Amino acid sequence: MTRTVEVTELALRDGHQSLLATRMAMEDMVPICEDIDQAGYWSVECWGGATYDSCIRFLNEDPWERLRTFRKLLPNSRLQMLLRGQNLLGYRHYEDTVVDRFVEKSAENGMDVFRVFDALNDVRNIKRALEAVRRTGKHAEATICYTTSPLHSVDMFVDMAEQLCEAGCDSICIKDMAALLRPQPAYDLVKGIKQRCGEDTVVHVHVHSTTGVTLVSLMKAIEAGADIVDTCISSMSLGPGHNPTEALVEMLPGTGYETRLDKDRLRKIKKYFAGIRPRYAEFASNILGVETDIFDSQIPGGMISNMESQLKQQGAADRVEEVMAEVPRVREAAGFPPLVTPSSQIVGTQAVLNVLMGPFKVLTAEFADLMLGYYGETQGDRDPKLIEAASKQAKKEPITCRPADMLKPEWDQLRTNALELEGCNGTDEDVLTYAMFPKVAPKFFVDRANGPKNLGKSPESQTEPSAVSASGGGKSITGPISYKVKLGNRTHSVSVEPA
Amino acid sequence: MTRTVEVTELALRDGHQSLLATRMAMEDMVPICEDIDQAGYWSVECWGGATYDSCIRFLNEDPWERLRTFRKLLPNSRLQMLLRGQNLLGYRHYEDTVVDRFVEKSAENGMDVFRVFDALNDVRNIKRALEAVRRTGKHAEATICYTTSPLHSVDMFVDMAEQLCEAGCDSICIKDMAALLRPQPAYDLVKGIKQRCGEDTVVHVHVHSTTGVTLVSLMKAIEAGADIVDTCISSMSLGPGHNPTEALVEMLPGTGYETRLDKDRLRKIKKYFAGIRPRYAEFASNILGVETDIFDSQIPGGMISNMESQLKQQGAADRVEEVMAEVPRVREAAGFPPLVTPSSQIVGTQAVLNVLMGPFKVLTAEFADLMLGYYGETQGDRDPKLIEAASKQAKKEPITCRPADMLKPEWDQLRTNALELEGCNGTDEDVLTYAMFPKVAPKFFVDRANGPKNLGKSPESQTEPSAVSASGGGKSITGPISYKVKLGNRTHSVSVEPA
Repeated sequence: MTRTVEVTELALRDGHQSLLATRMAMEDMVPICEDIDQAGYWSVECWGGATYDSCIRFLNEDPWERLRTFRKLLPNSRLQMLLRGQNLLGYRHYEDTVVDRFVEKSAENGMDVFRVFDALNDVRNIKRALEAVRRTGKHAEATICYTTSPLHSVDMFVDMAEQLCEAGCDSICIKDMAALLRPQPAYDLVKGIKQRCGEDTVVHVHVHSTTGVTLVSLMKAIEAGADIVDTCISSMSLGPGHNPTEALVEMLPGTGYETRLDKDRLRKIKKYFAGIRPRYAEFASNILGVETDIFDSQIPGGMISNMESQLKQQGAADRVEEVMAEVPRVREAAGFPPLVTPSSQIVGTQAVLNVLMGPFKVLTAEFADLMLGYYGETQGDRDPKLIEAASKQAKKEPITCRPADMLKPEWDQLRTNALELEGCNGTDEDVLTYAMFPKVAPKFFVDRANGPKNLGKSPESQTEPSAVSASGGGKSITGPISYKVKLGNRTHSVSVEPA
Repeated sequence: MTRTVEVTELALRDGHQSLLATRMAMEDMVPICEDIDQAGYWSVECWGGATYDSCIRFLNEDPWERLRTFRKLLPNSRLQMLLRGQNLLGYRHYEDTVVDRFVEKSAENGMDVFRVFDALNDVRNIKRALEAVRRTGKHAEATICYTTSPLHSVDMFVDMAEQLCEAGCDSICIKDMAALLRPQPAYDLVKGIKQRCGEDTVVHVHVHSTTGVTLVSLMKAIEAGADIVDTCISSMSLGPGHNPTEALVEMLPGTGYETRLDKDRLRKIKKYFAGIRPRYAEFASNILGVETDIFDSQIPGGMISNMESQLKQQGAADRVEEVMAEVPRVREAAGFPPLVTPSSQIVGTQAVLNVLMGPFKVLTAEFADLMLGYYGETQGDRDPKLIEAASKQAKKEPITCRPADMLKPEWDQLRTNALELEGCNGTDEDVLTYAMFPKVAPKFFVDRANGPKNLGKSPESQTEPSAVSASGGGKSITGPISYKVKLGNRTHSVSVEPA
């Protein structure tokens, strides 16, 4: 008897977020939606994460319009989003009624599956959003951020799964953003959750491919009973992205497991994105091969490039390896948080400061807040001396309550502020945009009428062939190239060749 | 109890053969040999396959000198080579004493492990080389070329393994050159061989990574008892190459299996080749992502690029897909040969002709020979009508004997011919070079004294960043670039920017 494994396609959200800095324009996704809708996926992840931010910051695109378009173009599919619990899609904690409102509006505009996580794995930061989702009747998926540390163990994650089940959810996601989930822990973790929370607990496994081992981990997770796994169509896969959907399909024959995906549709989707991906070469991740050093540093790919650019700005580009060695020390001091937005940025920036200025000589405001409990409870103990230093620097006391409990109702004020902005259309959706991105929203509201920008470029108009195309690598220019050059009012033919 | 899985490192042979058209110069391998020698590999594949041909054809390098250098620089390692059975490293069958001589000379110059295969899986074509290896006291590894077809089954391959064991060998290799070996068949095949031939039969698994599923297959092969697996250091891995060595190491913790590789050495080897690989960007494979269409066409990556260039020469570059659809039909007519040198070239070229001229209107001389049995026995029946047509065209009768049985002793004649060539040094090694590459050897003998050519180029001297670097993808030029241009005797500053 063969068991069907369900699949979530990531190309429309985490795929381009991981590989192309979340820059893909809606226009470049529309033409392939019908094939995606018909391919037999359990769900299509297409919203949330960094896409909201990217839409208003870079693409002049209304994220709510994007969601409604997906809803229209994917009528047979569950739409799925990634939601940062009490942070929603922003970078601070929101008061509960704002969380409720965001979830209601997302459901109303077409969202079906809400994957809710907290960067510290603090279940208190996930609960309210889960409850809001359940009130809408949509699918509430509670998330464990997987990481490794001297503290973390399979048992600890199974405990967390149990808490999440008690909090009330429709499925449990194991989210392995840094590709640290090895095959045996994948097996043990899925098995452990099924044993502790019941065999009918739906387990959904999300892994990245950075370290090269996680397709094996998916195989083991499936053997242990995983119900749904996340993959990305091959032409939008690998590197800091995800395992190829087609490889998942093709590894299963004979194993007693199968997907219900349509290979012809997959082929079309693959071909389509093979044409789109090179258009975003300038935003492409540098890391294209396999990187197993992450097992030692636990640093996800996106975080390394962030740190690199911070170091470059300080004229210290050569100190990346010191910073990578510093990250585990900062993590330990902070109670071993998983590294995922925003904890990855907080820990990464502090590690950069430690290397440049000396260990914890200067604390960022965010790191101080993390030490003081303002992001929530960490799973490990935090360094008491650093808590003291943080308190002194930030002139705040440490807290142990749920951070959002300290917030006063804020919706009315957010609404008043938003409505004062030129171009704000007065909807709750616009208020939410302002609430999450108060600095970016004003410009976006003004510019919105100009319509979306597509930052993709045809490979011909780029000065070099794309380095990221799955099928079309670059060819070297070996001969001279001719240009017409104007000097004053005379045109000269000039040829330039490699030295 | 944890079982140790042994590893063969492929970077020095199949790695650069698969990814960089076999162009890596010895000079670029020498500096890293010490780390490779100390890393804990079971063997280091570094010779044979296409390297011999490439050495004399492109690199002006004496392949025997390369072998002796490896022997000196890898004193603690088993050196391993790939040998095409009765074809040696050439493209025709050789008379038995030439085979014996080649094996003796290879052993004498330092070779330890001889992986012997036949493109048709005709055991008669492997036997003589195996016997020659065993006479030298070196390791004789007999090879099954893995493929899929309506004919092939796990049982059929296990039968072949049994014949190979009877023929006498020190290990059995499962060679999956097209990345068609899925996880479950990998498990079943290793298990089947161990059951049929004895648990102490050493099974060595060689897979490519093209389809993205074969690291999972290695996991399953290991679970079934595989003793040795082939991988390639991460910075020389993936695409039509192999699974990353570090990913193999990192997938095992907790599974009850481990390697004995030194991770610090692996890190050095990885870094080293990350610097070397971009130097060969102009020879780099186009296929860098995962390609699962191969499961339908069974066409290995290298074969696709061959067919593409043949079609291009005929002005029919747009007919690649027709040719890919034709390949399985040609394979069927020819008794379902595995596709590996030389059968891949023979089948591929015939498929191109079929598309351009009509099915089997014209047969290549090689395809005719294949149909008539001059390459050996195929595992499936060949089309009788095509045998007849081939016989008529080639004016030869079909044969059923071992092809080499038709050859008369040829060593003396080869020696006489070689010694007449300018620059031939009179050694048996030079005679063998001439024997295998009679058209290339004369020029090589003349040019040899000029010393090896290194075709690698520093990335700066290439006009674009490499598209293949595992760690350093290209960055688009977005702003204008300034050149100093001389026109007559005046120097102008010119800036050029993308249109």
